[in-house]
Amino acid sequence: MNIIKYPSISDYATICERPHLDVSQLNAIVAGVLADVKANGDKAVMEYEEKFDKAQLTQLAVTEEEMQEAECLVSPELKASLVLAHQNIAKFHQSQKFDGQKVETAPGVVCWQKSVAIEKVGLYIPGGTAPLFSTVLMLATPAKIAGCKEIVLCTPPNKEGKVNPAILVAARVAGVSKIFKAGGVQAIGAMAYGTESVPKVYKIFGPGNQYVMAAKQQVSLHDAAIDMPAGPSEVCVIADETSNAAYVAADLLSQAEHGIDSQVILISTSEQMLDAVIKETEAQLAVLPRHEIAEKTLVNSQFVLVHDKNEAMALSNAYAPEHLIIATDDYEALAEKVINAGSVFLGNYACESAGDYASGTNHTLPTHGYALAYNGVNLDSYNRKVTFQHLSQDGVRNIGPAVVCMAENEQLEAHANAMRIRVKDVMGNA
Amino acid sequence: MNIIKYPSISDYATICERPHLDVSQLNAIVAGVLADVKANGDKAVMEYEEKFDKAQLTQLAVTEEEMQEAECLVSPELKASLVLAHQNIAKFHQSQKFDGQKVETAPGVVCWQKSVAIEKVGLYIPGGTAPLFSTVLMLATPAKIAGCKEIVLCTPPNKEGKVNPAILVAARVAGVSKIFKAGGVQAIGAMAYGTESVPKVYKIFGPGNQYVMAAKQQVSLHDAAIDMPAGPSEVCVIADETSNAAYVAADLLSQAEHGIDSQVILISTSEQMLDAVIKETEAQLAVLPRHEIAEKTLVNSQFVLVHDKNEAMALSNAYAPEHLIIATDDYEALAEKVINAGSVFLGNYACESAGDYASGTNHTLPTHGYALAYNGVNLDSYNRKVTFQHLSQDGVRNIGPAVVCMAENEQLEAHANAMRIRVKDVMGNA
Repeated sequence: MNIIKYPSISDYATICERPHLDVSQLNAIVAGVLADVKANGDKAVMEYEEKFDKAQLTQLAVTEEEMQEAECLVSPELKASLVLAHQNIAKFHQSQKFDGQKVETAPGVVCWQKSVAIEKVGLYIPGGTAPLFSTVLMLATPAKIAGCKEIVLCTPPNKEGKVNPAILVAARVAGVSKIFKAGGVQAIGAMAYGTESVPKVYKIFGPGNQYVMAAKQQVSLHDAAIDMPAGPSEVCVIADETSNAAYVAADLLSQAEHGIDSQVILISTSEQMLDAVIKETEAQLAVLPRHEIAEKTLVNSQFVLVHDKNEAMALSNAYAPEHLIIATDDYEALAEKVINAGSVFLGNYACESAGDYASGTNHTLPTHGYALAYNGVNLDSYNRKVTFQHLSQDGVRNIGPAVVCMAENEQLEAHANAMRIRVKDVMGNA
Repeated sequence: MNIIKYPSISDYATICERPHLDVSQLNAIVAGVLADVKANGDKAVMEYEEKFDKAQLTQLAVTEEEMQEAECLVSPELKASLVLAHQNIAKFHQSQKFDGQKVETAPGVVCWQKSVAIEKVGLYIPGGTAPLFSTVLMLATPAKIAGCKEIVLCTPPNKEGKVNPAILVAARVAGVSKIFKAGGVQAIGAMAYGTESVPKVYKIFGPGNQYVMAAKQQVSLHDAAIDMPAGPSEVCVIADETSNAAYVAADLLSQAEHGIDSQVILISTSEQMLDAVIKETEAQLAVLPRHEIAEKTLVNSQFVLVHDKNEAMALSNAYAPEHLIIATDDYEALAEKVINAGSVFLGNYACESAGDYASGTNHTLPTHGYALAYNGVNLDSYNRKVTFQHLSQDGVRNIGPAVVCMAENEQLEAHANAMRIRVKDVMGNA
């Protein structure tokens, strides 16, 4: 733990520094796998599944029998939780539907935007010991609401060639069209290029290790858009003398258990609260199953004491956290001052895990400082806003001469001419 | 001209093919310039300005005197046209303002989105013989409406160290905060990293040559977001027997004059119209100042005859054009069927140049097939939608158990614990 008392603004850069993430040294390996998948399709994907996941597959698609089997293997309690979380996520993302209004920008000139779903999207869900079924809900639910026609999901199988049943149930609940057993770079390649069985998609979403991250970067140059750049998860908690130290400590630890590269920052306006949170954190840490990971993360964590709420918000905005918990009693006033953050949790009861699973907000968020320029996944992430315009003869009369003048000055004579011949025609009709 | 009659669906892929754009062979050169700018700031930028633009500069910032001089150099007619175009662009982008509504996803759980401007944005405007002042309006107007605090513009000077006056006037009209004389890779580096005089920005917008494109790709991996991937400009026109052949020809030529890599496609349901447009195109081409460029572009253009409107829309959606002109009398019905396009122009009078300059829609659009997954620049491009959530004790009671169950099943015990201790507290209060 780094305890920093009353830093000056010139210290902010150091406090806000993230570890440098550079996956370029993986580029050659990743490019090789991608090229193989592009050239050899399913056969290449299956070979890499055998090599990396030790799974011998005869087909990539998850079968209807496997889907039914999964339904029996997931407990009724987890199934009910998935349905409740899905309802809330659906309700919030449904509320984000966009209805473009026609705007008459000048007499006879009408412009509007229309939100149109991306036809084919691909979702990547990593494997490993902890199945990220919550991410299935977060990525597939808005895709379904947006109206994407093809929602493809790739996730690595275990050695027995099986996908975790909770992932399959979550995919069914959220409306995924096709599920394939493929992980890592080969999964990203399969979705970016398409194979005999995996449809090519236009945008790829989802987390992954540094190989997946490098693969997403590479395919994003030419073959498929991606949701956002990746990085280790992080939380910033703002506390004052009214905060609940046990809650704050639990929230810091819930971030710390993710991985040893997770970022944890506490900003407190009260020294007493800072001390109390440190004590609580140590007490709660001792009984955590993943306490070894959390302990290592905490070594790099920052506990910062500031003079007042303005300083707290200035430091938080400079840091641009993925998750920001404002655990003070004046959270409404502070919420107004948030400029840079992914998702914000207000008050004593909105813990980060509420948003990670079931409040309804999306948990796929910009981390590593990317919140300065990116937002998290939302309904817009699955849509494009196509613009439309219509001009009447009146519209040509009103903006035509300006268009001709500007085109002439940009030395684009054919641009000028396209409007000029219309102006000439309609001026006769005036 | 390639004239293709009644293609089958299996021919669409060939018709829709774009030239392969690969700037990776430039990566080493570009990386060298970027690293130099990062290390040496203004000094490096000035050296590259001397090397590439033959301009000897003692400072990068455009001065107030230069701004005033520009006002005198731009004709009143062009100034009035810029103001009219700016008004329309402002009106349309103003209408895109987002007001997030609070949604109670479950009793006691309230979620909402808030649109927050990216604090610092950078706009790149290329140099060359034709000054792209229209792009200044397109990029700076929404930045100002969004509320970006710092709007930085970089554009290369001429050999005399001067920036085109129309660019400066457009920048003043649209509300740019700071203008710098810098072009190419060094400009992208200056904005991505910041120098002594150029502020670091969080997102970079604007067109450029393949070096600029490679530089934007490189900085987007770590240092600044970018608007969208780049590619040569393109138009698709859908015509039928009711279209005006002279207008359609003028629209095709206005795209063809951009550069020899521009893409031009006509899809007609009428063979007579197809022939008439070909004749008109040849006649109009002869008198164009840039007819050499347009002529070369037309060699690769495609004139496609289809059976009916459904086929026309299917082919257009497969192509995913940057600009789509629906020059038929049933344009309203066809507009409903647009799935993949950047900006759509409806009827006889909405020529592409209307949208390029003054209708109000943005002309920074996804090309090269990127319209499958991207939209053009709009107000959202300068904002992030930050999510907020608040839980009351009731909220904890309603979603708490599901959160705990899901976290336990994802083997994230600290996540479960953060909610569990709140559930325990509020259950006592029930």
